[in-house]
Amino acid sequence: MFRPEIKVLDCTIRDGGLINDHFFSDEFVRAVYEALARSGVDYIEMGYRSSRELCPPEKFGAWKYCDDDKIRQITEGIESDIKISIMVDAYRVKEQVFAPADESPVDMVRSAIYVKDVDKGIDLINRCHDLGYETTVNIMAVSKEIEPDIVEALDQLAKTPVDVVYVVDSFGSMYCEQIEYLVKLYREHLPGKEIGIHCHNNQQLAFANTIEGIIHNANYVDGSLYGIGRGAGNCCLELLLGFLKNPKFDLTPVLRVIQEQMIPMLKDIEWGYMIPYMLTGALNEHPRHAIAMRKTADKDKYAEFYQELSQTLS
Amino acid sequence: MFRPEIKVLDCTIRDGGLINDHFFSDEFVRAVYEALARSGVDYIEMGYRSSRELCPPEKFGAWKYCDDDKIRQITEGIESDIKISIMVDAYRVKEQVFAPADESPVDMVRSAIYVKDVDKGIDLINRCHDLGYETTVNIMAVSKEIEPDIVEALDQLAKTPVDVVYVVDSFGSMYCEQIEYLVKLYREHLPGKEIGIHCHNNQQLAFANTIEGIIHNANYVDGSLYGIGRGAGNCCLELLLGFLKNPKFDLTPVLRVIQEQMIPMLKDIEWGYMIPYMLTGALNEHPRHAIAMRKTADKDKYAEFYQELSQTLS
Repeated sequence: MFRPEIKVLDCTIRDGGLINDHFFSDEFVRAVYEALARSGVDYIEMGYRSSRELCPPEKFGAWKYCDDDKIRQITEGIESDIKISIMVDAYRVKEQVFAPADESPVDMVRSAIYVKDVDKGIDLINRCHDLGYETTVNIMAVSKEIEPDIVEALDQLAKTPVDVVYVVDSFGSMYCEQIEYLVKLYREHLPGKEIGIHCHNNQQLAFANTIEGIIHNANYVDGSLYGIGRGAGNCCLELLLGFLKNPKFDLTPVLRVIQEQMIPMLKDIEWGYMIPYMLTGALNEHPRHAIAMRKTADKDKYAEFYQELSQTLS
Repeated sequence: MFRPEIKVLDCTIRDGGLINDHFFSDEFVRAVYEALARSGVDYIEMGYRSSRELCPPEKFGAWKYCDDDKIRQITEGIESDIKISIMVDAYRVKEQVFAPADESPVDMVRSAIYVKDVDKGIDLINRCHDLGYETTVNIMAVSKEIEPDIVEALDQLAKTPVDVVYVVDSFGSMYCEQIEYLVKLYREHLPGKEIGIHCHNNQQLAFANTIEGIIHNANYVDGSLYGIGRGAGNCCLELLLGFLKNPKFDLTPVLRVIQEQMIPMLKDIEWGYMIPYMLTGALNEHPRHAIAMRKTADKDKYAEFYQELSQTLS
């Protein structure tokens, strides 16, 4: 698949940060930044820009806030064309500062919303767009929303300056049919906008569903190194680059940073396909119960967890 | 997806046996058999029926031969409707004995062939069909064959009594487009036969490709517990049962045998998504180079392996 419009965003630091409260070392973030820059990936997402009032700094690492100066510490001295994105939870905006884009290392602000928060998302987009940033809206948990509500949100977003709206399979519950349906729905209601796709791997479908999105003309696609991300993680960046035949991509730096950084990291934090995440995915549920049980001594008691989950949800 | 014609075959013991030369303990095989019987899965594949002359018994465990008496030792005393299949490499048939089906615990003989061995496959099918067995042909490595050769083999198979012909993604190299294309091609050339699908997980596409096969009317689908199988392994049975909504399936016994048998087994043998297998898959190559490098001290030197592989293949 070679379509020059396709833009690949790596969310290793951002989504991976949800596992360890964003406490990645500068050395790690720099290694990832350098590898991605060399690989030809279009965007690296450094983390969240969160409110320190709502998210106290004693609880989180630097990548929960992504201060411009902190980002510059990482990128300094590395030649690169890669663009930098940050994510903002639009429903938790408070005192965060956004410099004008031409004074910031950040190129793109991605606004994460639930359908009910679309107005907060629009407010953030307008503000960031006026400051000169590229903007996106990532509508989370759509597998739990009814269609008129999704359509209303899309119709509102169609009137904004937002560049990209993402189909997000938050719970890793979707099959290719749902991805096709939603990407087509988003395209229909967002004329002139780009569509993005962000998939989770609970059912080992993140890569397949990302391809499905691409087939139906989603042009912004998310991956992460070795699939790192909360719970079952994301679409593997290495798989995406293997599939996209754009000659600008180079797989070797990605393989190298996986062997040098990601594999050793698996000794300290876990992610990827595991039965508890498979079960929350198949049941279209938030992975929180699975994350909690993986921290207990019963972390491999799958049959019992399935019974509990089925009872909790019934 | 609920289509009563869909038959699920578990190949845990057979494909998993390729990792450990078929040295599974009777206790393990019995636990798997019992769990699958309870789960409502249609077939369990016990292993290969290989020639002892070609495959000397000092090198392999019992499940390389699947003698009828050995199978009876496992199944004895367990109430079950599950059918039993064995696989035979049609190009390595020598002195193996097949009792009449009504005197054997085996219900189905699956003949594994390369395109060039279709006549050997047909010979085996005819013989087993006459003995009363259900028969299938699994055409391996079709991603390396040119279409006229595949079509010629299919046209020959159309004239035999074979019940099912499988699309096999031996190298885990196929995307959904190729699966769709091949399943339709097989259907076109095999009127009245059932189509099966057997996928490998090198690119995390085994489950997605199995679904793709089902969408295009493949009715025989293979899975294995926690995806066990040589290299990157197979489509996970637990994912398949979560997707197929036939109420006859019960996921709980499958989850329990995964937690009790498969997870502990990962300490001794490895399978599943790993970068070397991803690379052979993306390059449409047999996993043998990846399997060999995973047994060396350089097993996580992915960038170097990729360079070597690219040079070897160029």
